[in-house]
Amino acid sequence: MPTADDQDSRTVLTDDEVRRLDAHWRAANYLAAGQIYLLANPLLTEPLRPDHIKPRLLGHWGTSPGLNLVHTHLNRVIRARDLDALCVWGPGHGGPSVVANSWLEGSYSETYPDVSRDAEGMARLFRQFSFPGGVPSHVAPETPGSIHEGGELGYALAHAYGAAFDHPDLLVACVVGDGEAETGPLAASWHSNKFLDPVHDGAVLPILHLNGYKIANPTVLSRLPEPELDALLRGYGHDPLYVAGDDPAQVHRDLAATLDRALDRIAGIQRAAREGGATERQPWPVIVLRTPKGWTGPAEVDGDPVEGTWRAHQVPLPGVRENPEHLRQLEAWLRSYRPEELFDADGRPVADVLACVPDGARRLGATPYANGGLLVRDLPVPSLDDFAVPVDKPGVTLHEPTRVLGGLLEQVMRDSAARRDFRLVGPDETASNRLQDVFGATGKAWQDATLPVDEHLDRHGRVMEILSEHLCQGWLEGYLLTGRHGLFSCYEAFVHIVDSMVNQHIKWLKTSRELSWRAPIASLNYLLTSHVWRQDHNGFSHQDPGFVDHVLNKSPQVVRVYLPPDANTLLSVADHALRSRDYVNVVVAGKQPCYDWLTMDQARAHCARGAGIWEWAGTENGGEPDVVLGCAGDVPTQEVLAAAQLLRRNLPDLAVRVVNVVDMTTLLPREEHPHGMTDFEYDGLFTADKPVIFAYHGYPWLIHRLAYRRTGHPNLHVRGYKESGTTTTPFDMVVRNDLDRYRLVMDVIDRVPGLRVRAAAVRQQMADARTRHHAWIREHGTDMPEVAEWSWGA
Amino acid sequence: MPTADDQDSRTVLTDDEVRRLDAHWRAANYLAAGQIYLLANPLLTEPLRPDHIKPRLLGHWGTSPGLNLVHTHLNRVIRARDLDALCVWGPGHGGPSVVANSWLEGSYSETYPDVSRDAEGMARLFRQFSFPGGVPSHVAPETPGSIHEGGELGYALAHAYGAAFDHPDLLVACVVGDGEAETGPLAASWHSNKFLDPVHDGAVLPILHLNGYKIANPTVLSRLPEPELDALLRGYGHDPLYVAGDDPAQVHRDLAATLDRALDRIAGIQRAAREGGATERQPWPVIVLRTPKGWTGPAEVDGDPVEGTWRAHQVPLPGVRENPEHLRQLEAWLRSYRPEELFDADGRPVADVLACVPDGARRLGATPYANGGLLVRDLPVPSLDDFAVPVDKPGVTLHEPTRVLGGLLEQVMRDSAARRDFRLVGPDETASNRLQDVFGATGKAWQDATLPVDEHLDRHGRVMEILSEHLCQGWLEGYLLTGRHGLFSCYEAFVHIVDSMVNQHIKWLKTSRELSWRAPIASLNYLLTSHVWRQDHNGFSHQDPGFVDHVLNKSPQVVRVYLPPDANTLLSVADHALRSRDYVNVVVAGKQPCYDWLTMDQARAHCARGAGIWEWAGTENGGEPDVVLGCAGDVPTQEVLAAAQLLRRNLPDLAVRVVNVVDMTTLLPREEHPHGMTDFEYDGLFTADKPVIFAYHGYPWLIHRLAYRRTGHPNLHVRGYKESGTTTTPFDMVVRNDLDRYRLVMDVIDRVPGLRVRAAAVRQQMADARTRHHAWIREHGTDMPEVAEWSWGA
Repeated sequence: MPTADDQDSRTVLTDDEVRRLDAHWRAANYLAAGQIYLLANPLLTEPLRPDHIKPRLLGHWGTSPGLNLVHTHLNRVIRARDLDALCVWGPGHGGPSVVANSWLEGSYSETYPDVSRDAEGMARLFRQFSFPGGVPSHVAPETPGSIHEGGELGYALAHAYGAAFDHPDLLVACVVGDGEAETGPLAASWHSNKFLDPVHDGAVLPILHLNGYKIANPTVLSRLPEPELDALLRGYGHDPLYVAGDDPAQVHRDLAATLDRALDRIAGIQRAAREGGATERQPWPVIVLRTPKGWTGPAEVDGDPVEGTWRAHQVPLPGVRENPEHLRQLEAWLRSYRPEELFDADGRPVADVLACVPDGARRLGATPYANGGLLVRDLPVPSLDDFAVPVDKPGVTLHEPTRVLGGLLEQVMRDSAARRDFRLVGPDETASNRLQDVFGATGKAWQDATLPVDEHLDRHGRVMEILSEHLCQGWLEGYLLTGRHGLFSCYEAFVHIVDSMVNQHIKWLKTSRELSWRAPIASLNYLLTSHVWRQDHNGFSHQDPGFVDHVLNKSPQVVRVYLPPDANTLLSVADHALRSRDYVNVVVAGKQPCYDWLTMDQARAHCARGAGIWEWAGTENGGEPDVVLGCAGDVPTQEVLAAAQLLRRNLPDLAVRVVNVVDMTTLLPREEHPHGMTDFEYDGLFTADKPVIFAYHGYPWLIHRLAYRRTGHPNLHVRGYKESGTTTTPFDMVVRNDLDRYRLVMDVIDRVPGLRVRAAAVRQQMADARTRHHAWIREHGTDMPEVAEWSWGA
Repeated sequence: MPTADDQDSRTVLTDDEVRRLDAHWRAANYLAAGQIYLLANPLLTEPLRPDHIKPRLLGHWGTSPGLNLVHTHLNRVIRARDLDALCVWGPGHGGPSVVANSWLEGSYSETYPDVSRDAEGMARLFRQFSFPGGVPSHVAPETPGSIHEGGELGYALAHAYGAAFDHPDLLVACVVGDGEAETGPLAASWHSNKFLDPVHDGAVLPILHLNGYKIANPTVLSRLPEPELDALLRGYGHDPLYVAGDDPAQVHRDLAATLDRALDRIAGIQRAAREGGATERQPWPVIVLRTPKGWTGPAEVDGDPVEGTWRAHQVPLPGVRENPEHLRQLEAWLRSYRPEELFDADGRPVADVLACVPDGARRLGATPYANGGLLVRDLPVPSLDDFAVPVDKPGVTLHEPTRVLGGLLEQVMRDSAARRDFRLVGPDETASNRLQDVFGATGKAWQDATLPVDEHLDRHGRVMEILSEHLCQGWLEGYLLTGRHGLFSCYEAFVHIVDSMVNQHIKWLKTSRELSWRAPIASLNYLLTSHVWRQDHNGFSHQDPGFVDHVLNKSPQVVRVYLPPDANTLLSVADHALRSRDYVNVVVAGKQPCYDWLTMDQARAHCARGAGIWEWAGTENGGEPDVVLGCAGDVPTQEVLAAAQLLRRNLPDLAVRVVNVVDMTTLLPREEHPHGMTDFEYDGLFTADKPVIFAYHGYPWLIHRLAYRRTGHPNLHVRGYKESGTTTTPFDMVVRNDLDRYRLVMDVIDRVPGLRVRAAAVRQQMADARTRHHAWIREHGTDMPEVAEWSWGA
């Protein structure tokens, strides 16, 4: 296919260069296969025996030769051009490959000195792979140079772009497997180039590896007619360069030439934008690499073709311990790499093998970009007092919490303008979520044409908006993992779209925290707003508070969940989240006008404790309360305070305590979460024996799941969202879910011993108010004035 | 742009036809705007006053004129060609539009007789929209003709393909919004055409509606340079046809001609395949429709451009009750449709408006394809006895449960071969999940080229494999919603990828069940396998049992969760799931060899109860047990039985009861779930006061969340998966998570009063066994023989 730049320099490797590259590739292939199979005899110094073979053969061979080929050639260009490069290995299940390359270049032994770069280390390298107590079968946090676990496919390209944003000198290569390319998130990720600023961002070089097969099927992209594939990639905004073949020498020559052409083009695009002021988005190169799956492995096993087919996906030769013919085949396969030419008698790679390997931090396994904690700087978070809302009395003034946070974020954007290490991502919802003040400091990243009617689009903007939660999440993960900061603002219901992605990120962080060489990175911060109680324009499909439940299943070392009840507590929580490391912080907060309850100082103290008694809201007087009203979340807090007010007015001698919970994990036992309260602390707030009516933002049983071990748990009665939703008014939503003030007062009357008789009239008043609501709303379509105009402190 | 078929007949509308189509479109636009704004005065028979306006202005205007345009023109071609058609409205937040069209064609009033097709009915139509107690703002189950809620964007095209599979005479139009087109699932969905069989499947006609903007931003696709967009769509395997403009008459002419060309091409492709035997995949037409967002609405509001911009997204004129100028603008806008020409004095649409409307079940709001329960037939599920594994004694023989299920599914495939109303979907995992026997009855759908090495690819196959859980889910939802059956087999960890999709489907089913006119459809059945305990090749990224927690947050009317412990119980559960209606059935079962515990008859009885005592496994003798061992899931069941055996041998006088739970919702109180046990039943199994050691497949706190109200809950001690995973052996996985037999015996000893002293030596033996495990596994990399060779019944 003709390409735009036939004037590009054509790299022509000498035979000697080909020989050396091939030696590196063969060495990597040998080491990858060795990891899958060998327990001993790593250099094949003696004939292969069954007892040299691992008892459990695990791992993924099929993708490994392709990854090795790319690694070998990236080595060459990094060295030749002195590049700062990172590679995202999409088919990260090919773990043996990336580990092999790291060992060859020496970064593995520097990270894990017991796995030395010699025969003894090679034996350890082989044995540990997929071995209990050893290293996992995939590229993982344990793998030097990695920021991407390639088990759950779909996110490689988004991670690569995240790594490239605001790293102008970085080249991020990204191997996209043709299996992964079928996923939705990957299919959407190609359009990330519409958001890549050639001035301030680095480059992403996707390498679409068409090895033709998934686990059991051909892949969609590998079987497209060639013109269709070419059109698709051009439609994605790329200029495709093709390399295909199964003759190693020729593929080496073609891939080297093609990589050089791609890098020349990238340099040209960057130069034009940075020096020439070019602003029109250019097609970035993509390399399409078509080589056989399981290349150089067994061509046939038991009469079935294996190399070049899906049968090469995992372990191409099974049962090697038991099957002498397979053992023979394995030995022939391993010896086909001629290990005696690749490693010296001590097992060290010979000079030819290492000829292409770059030095020091330029090595892909040693780049600090893949250990972002080495690069991260503290974010300049300004003083909260500059953004706090004044609160003379609780519950008098109203603010939109997220709008107040927007002011803080604007300042963070401003203060990080030169450093460019903070980004705000969201699916087209920054303004909808009322964070639009940030546009005072930066715009929305956008590289395509603009029209006069557009607002805040900015070729160099650091707000990222695309209608894909997957891309928001993937970009931000890549950005954080390479040493920067960010916040993901999302409609609460639709953050479930990235449930599986946050799973993987939490798993990554959990494992990383256990590795001393991985420096802590900035936390992944979610602001979930436009939440379940205030989806006024939408309805049932937009009502789902279950993300909190989802993340609380994950590692307590990593997960934090905050439900600030007002603007100042949101500021305090955000401040903490933005400064923290190695967490996933989930913050749920409203964008609608919400009463201000706490001054900034009170908010700081309350958030630091995570949960506390709001004395001013209760009616206890030094003694034990008769009942505790618990609340978590902005709407439940308002309903609880309205209920407390009703109780104060109607049952003035009832001792009511109001407890607000900001940090949900405080409800867990101390031994289950570092933020968990001791039983002494918990009982001090909630008592061990009094009825507790708890109004919670989400699914009510979550509170039971957190608190079931507490002494007072049998007295705990929780109200929350129970999937009763539609397009309706804010107060009707709480009534439908039995979370409203009147229902809460009735709950108190029903549960405080003796009160049901004594307060029967009050209870009836509450029931009447609910009836009145139903009648009013059907007639007027609005909330009745006693609710709409309610305040605590007026 | 030149297209391939300039010889296509060119539709030329007469002026009269244009006038009538335009009348229909104007009427629909008028009704859409009226729903958003008007509380009274629906026909504008008097000047508009503030009290005619709704107090809360809610809804999405921006997309509505485009949807109305498409609906008008689909009416025309359905009528002209007597088509069986269904439309999936991707921008389903444009609810007023689809409701308006249904009202115009009469299907709305037939479904909801109180909303009659006259002035009174129009007043109701307007008032009910987004009004408390009325209808939701989106296309929803309440909307006649709908199978798709367009709130959570991304799934329109997958739903459309699902509807088209195995409906050879159906045309499924699908409006894809350019916002939605940015999502991952939608981006992947374009490739669905590689799986559409032109012989047995109907056609999908995507209509990509580029109105240019999302909530606050231009869309990516609308700003692509035209050649890039064209290349993209051709790369997706489509032949794009373009319609663009803002002059209604011209757009009517162009769209009519283009729709006819598209339908001619579809007919041509189908004819070539069905009559001519053509087998090469052809590019299917896609229509690219470029019209302004909020077309015909206010051009400017308060000096800002609105029509044709993102500002038209929701309610273009806010505060109409309070702002006289906005009121005036609204009146002018509504009168611009000339309602007096469109509706007679009684509010009935005039003949010109209805000229394009098809008859009876051909109307988009009346098609039975959108009320799939009207079409669904009972699936022919064969007798389980033909597939059951023989069980003479429990725990002696081993079978792979999913492989046994594969035999049943093969028979279902065979028996539905002529009806073609059952499909199996999965992300390239049918064989990996050991269901490959189905290939004896049908192949894997595949329309592209095949090679000799391929297996089971079949142009007419009913197994659907693509490496996209989103597409598997979306296709299956569309298939079920249009009256067919299916099963989604998925790796357990990665089903989280569709968390948000299953949310939406459950919400859909919950609402549908409340609508008497919606007939029950076949359940959405998940088989989750390759589960957390047996991810031998992969590791931590593949270990996540949280989907059960996720679905159990949702409506109990809809959600069912089964963990069959062996092959025969899996058959029984699958039989129930395949016959059921309107549920989401989640079945978690292993693919690895697993002991057979129950005969087919025992399995049927056990599954019917949902939970029961396995007397043969316990040591109680008529009286009350000293301890209950509970289990749910195949691996926990095995560990519990091994623990029971250890207890029987080492503490023969301890009365141990073994309770196995298949149906997780039995643990819930009866009032919370229809399958929930009464307290009497629960206590009869688990006792009210004895220690219960419960070994659960997933996160242990789920059991507490289900059982916290039970009397015996304080004595309940649960073991399960606690995010301790890696690539390791099966037994090491249970040891790492404290779910192993030795740990369970220690738990029993620790919790039965007095036993800790009396059984100290046994406890030490158990601890020693765990130590032995650790040493063995580090040396050998396998499970020690006493575990690997264990059986219950030998």
